[in-house]
Amino acid sequence: MLGRHHDDMSWIFPQLFGLVFPLLYLRGFIKPNVILSENFMKTKSYVSRSLGLTSLRIEVVLNGLLSTFQKFQQMASIDKLVSLGFQDILGKGIIIQSGCMQMAFGSIISTCEAPAQAQNLRDSLAVAKSDIVVKIGLRKGSRSFEEARAAGFTEENGSLGDIWETISGSDLTMLLISDAAQADNYEKVFSHMKSSSILGLSHGFLLGHLQSLGLDFPKDISVIAVCPKGMGPSVRRLYVQGKEINGAGINSSFAVHQDVDGKATNVALGWSVALGSPYTFATTLEQEYKCDIYGERGIQLGAVHGIVEALFRRYTENGMAEELAYKNIVECITGIITKTISTKGMLAVYNSLTDEEKTEFNAAYSASYYPCMDILYECYEDVACGSEIRSVVLAGRRFYEKEGLPAFPMGNIDQTRMWKVGERVRATRLEGDLGPLYPFTAGVYVALMMAQIEVLRKKGHSYSEIINESVIESVDSLNPFMHARGLAFMVDNCSTTARLGSRKWAPRFDYILTQQAFVAVDKKAAINQDLLSNFLSDPVHEALEVCAQLRPTVDISVPPNADFVRPELRKANF
Amino acid sequence: MLGRHHDDMSWIFPQLFGLVFPLLYLRGFIKPNVILSENFMKTKSYVSRSLGLTSLRIEVVLNGLLSTFQKFQQMASIDKLVSLGFQDILGKGIIIQSGCMQMAFGSIISTCEAPAQAQNLRDSLAVAKSDIVVKIGLRKGSRSFEEARAAGFTEENGSLGDIWETISGSDLTMLLISDAAQADNYEKVFSHMKSSSILGLSHGFLLGHLQSLGLDFPKDISVIAVCPKGMGPSVRRLYVQGKEINGAGINSSFAVHQDVDGKATNVALGWSVALGSPYTFATTLEQEYKCDIYGERGIQLGAVHGIVEALFRRYTENGMAEELAYKNIVECITGIITKTISTKGMLAVYNSLTDEEKTEFNAAYSASYYPCMDILYECYEDVACGSEIRSVVLAGRRFYEKEGLPAFPMGNIDQTRMWKVGERVRATRLEGDLGPLYPFTAGVYVALMMAQIEVLRKKGHSYSEIINESVIESVDSLNPFMHARGLAFMVDNCSTTARLGSRKWAPRFDYILTQQAFVAVDKKAAINQDLLSNFLSDPVHEALEVCAQLRPTVDISVPPNADFVRPELRKANF
Repeated sequence: MLGRHHDDMSWIFPQLFGLVFPLLYLRGFIKPNVILSENFMKTKSYVSRSLGLTSLRIEVVLNGLLSTFQKFQQMASIDKLVSLGFQDILGKGIIIQSGCMQMAFGSIISTCEAPAQAQNLRDSLAVAKSDIVVKIGLRKGSRSFEEARAAGFTEENGSLGDIWETISGSDLTMLLISDAAQADNYEKVFSHMKSSSILGLSHGFLLGHLQSLGLDFPKDISVIAVCPKGMGPSVRRLYVQGKEINGAGINSSFAVHQDVDGKATNVALGWSVALGSPYTFATTLEQEYKCDIYGERGIQLGAVHGIVEALFRRYTENGMAEELAYKNIVECITGIITKTISTKGMLAVYNSLTDEEKTEFNAAYSASYYPCMDILYECYEDVACGSEIRSVVLAGRRFYEKEGLPAFPMGNIDQTRMWKVGERVRATRLEGDLGPLYPFTAGVYVALMMAQIEVLRKKGHSYSEIINESVIESVDSLNPFMHARGLAFMVDNCSTTARLGSRKWAPRFDYILTQQAFVAVDKKAAINQDLLSNFLSDPVHEALEVCAQLRPTVDISVPPNADFVRPELRKANF
Repeated sequence: MLGRHHDDMSWIFPQLFGLVFPLLYLRGFIKPNVILSENFMKTKSYVSRSLGLTSLRIEVVLNGLLSTFQKFQQMASIDKLVSLGFQDILGKGIIIQSGCMQMAFGSIISTCEAPAQAQNLRDSLAVAKSDIVVKIGLRKGSRSFEEARAAGFTEENGSLGDIWETISGSDLTMLLISDAAQADNYEKVFSHMKSSSILGLSHGFLLGHLQSLGLDFPKDISVIAVCPKGMGPSVRRLYVQGKEINGAGINSSFAVHQDVDGKATNVALGWSVALGSPYTFATTLEQEYKCDIYGERGIQLGAVHGIVEALFRRYTENGMAEELAYKNIVECITGIITKTISTKGMLAVYNSLTDEEKTEFNAAYSASYYPCMDILYECYEDVACGSEIRSVVLAGRRFYEKEGLPAFPMGNIDQTRMWKVGERVRATRLEGDLGPLYPFTAGVYVALMMAQIEVLRKKGHSYSEIINESVIESVDSLNPFMHARGLAFMVDNCSTTARLGSRKWAPRFDYILTQQAFVAVDKKAAINQDLLSNFLSDPVHEALEVCAQLRPTVDISVPPNADFVRPELRKANF
């Protein structure tokens, strides 16, 4: 989960997701699942119209419910299930009879658009004339009380209170606190939850943490997750924009991990709809955390950091001027490559090169693919076995003095030579300049992206998740942040888990590219033609093409004066 | 454990250890332990004379047996315990009545001096006229059968056989197979062991692996470890030299993890003596693997690699010629700094600088100490919690194709620009040239060493272990290898666990130094005077001073034609 601010909330950077499954399913690329695609604008006008989300669309994959394409075709009636989720919560009170649905927050982020999830849900429930209460619970003495009040949550109207009292009184406890806080407080949270109530997560981290300890959730509660694919402030901003602009919103994945009374799926879908998610795809808690924690260590943050450092050293050692090198690397990736992949896919990057440039791309791609995969594969398995999560928990405890050793908070990553050059480049950049398309850089970057996709594919993830973590979050959410204000603005606006992971894995990609890929290129090692033809014919391009067509009308723009970021980064040099 | 060859044996690079404890104990630096120091040359002439180890000395710390210095002074009689260990095994057969003590090897390394432990034990037992059989067990079809026969172990004389049959018939099973093989085969090993027999290890890795799985050793066996502080071939070479040269030998630590019948300590000490260890210090299996795996990721291999890469980039970017930069970094560390610390300690490095040079040392030390500690601290905790061990096991499985993903064996680390420069520098180096003492390099290196010591100290390790892992193994064993033939010759002659760890952690040290330490120096950040005065007065210097006086008469020399190394490295450029 990338977009958590201040360790307080659990949101992911925005990205848009589309109608990928039906196409891929037809081609047999994914495992037999049931795929539902429902345009709410046409069939569920009540919800859509009242929220102004006129193109609301939900896509659900229900693993295992049906298992053949033929059955999928017969599934028109299951639309009802999808719609029930939202309507149960909003209107009919089928699920929560008492109206006592409360949100339990550990804290609230201190940006002007927070708390996004709470506000979206409250607004959706109000539109639906529901008497369900969205209540924010905070730790005693939290400085977030003031900000919650400013967002309209107050003790007087029963929508703000102590975290433990709030959990005890909730039918749905949405645990949107930081990973570290979850690791430190889960026992107390569980012990305060009512039997048969629902634990709602926006990330699978807690499952990973429990697994690494050989533990599990209490058996008498349901456990669900709705994971918005964008950072918290975007979840709110696009929800608000969705009332005015057709198609705005943040997509989500959802998971039902435990279901004690058969209501969990409906609640999860209702939560997702109420958040304003135009598309929702199914996953499991386990797949979610593996893909998410891996992705941010890979191309989303860590790997892209590592490869640009390695490329900058290479280009400048070979005599390229610093500013030109920066343009040919970072500007190239965060500008033209990002824009092209976002709107037209990876192949479009390749196809826009001249023959001579393609030769350079091929050399870089061929030499970089396996070294990138080497580290990505290691990273995936370290995440999957629990080591990475344990490492995050331990790192959080080193932020403070203990055992006679000093505190080690995270340090700056962008005060080095390369990023000072970046400041100068951005300062003189013309409006809309997307930088040069430098073929060697493109070859390395696309190889990284393809290697990341391949590992996820072999590890059994659905294309929904694969494309989300490996492509869309990068090009529609994160790279634009680096384009606007550099490395730290991208990395350090993310969650602690992501920031730690980026610091940990970036240097690995740097070293392996330098030691293996660049050495091979300089030795003029033979191009691996199979790799290149596999790249050109990879089925992932079709999925991406569909996503590009389904791109929303509202960009995740990052204006220079954007104020929805970590406070210490607001005044960052840019 | 650093010195395992080909993943087949479990030895550590050689280092010498001395009479540190009594001095430190008097000053209150260590926890109250019983300290025994016994000069075998004077009191146990039988053993010493017959092996030619005329200055054999054993130093034992028995945790918890007695707890005050006064009691230590009254412990003359406990000498008997120490001597019993060896004599029990060699002569009287007190421990192993049947004479059926066998060694179980999974495989044998393919160098001309292997298998060192087996040969040393066999020779010692022969000198003692013991009928104990040292039998080597190998997997069916192992190519090591031939090499075992060449070393005099044969099926005909009962000293060579199938690994599982050997284990089933052994009273002491010395499991000297690779970490990965231990992780994959421990269940089968346990199931073949006789009840009440002894499992002998030369590294605590298996305990760490079992802990990470929530498992433990079978309760009906004893578990001991004797961990020679040097690579396998040195264990043999110095044992042979010890017959001719007064004082040669490889020191060991020992641990008794389970003792089902009260004999385990004696057997462990006997094993250590029979190996030819002049000094033996006590540890626990858990402390051993934590310290060892951490140390090789730190200054022994990983950290020293990372800092020299970072320094080379810095010096050359600031305009220094490549070859001069290499000399001011690697030659400086592996030459003059290594020699000075080995013989005169860290303070001698500092004291040999001019005032102006001290200023530069101070700036480097002050800026590098905490960034180094940041990564070291993380590394220690990742090792201690089991994540690092799990990561090694997983990496070993990625050496081969699986799950549709290709094999990822370890790649070369020394084909980059810097190490090509190193080849040129070594090719023109004059005999005995120890390189320049460049103060900035010295400041970074010594800061790293001191940070590594401090983390171990705060984590409760004894000075014996601290000095071994942080200082002696580096300057007496490993740095000379890099001095002789460069980075890979040092790193890739070590165990798979060490090689993987070095590749994983080196870039972390590089990045944090570049991002934090060098940025601070360039900003002319204030020198942390407390750090420097702490350095000058640190009690570790006294321990090191004693070690320097007790340096053995035989150096761990690495001649250009050394043949006791991994075969693919024998023809390395140098």
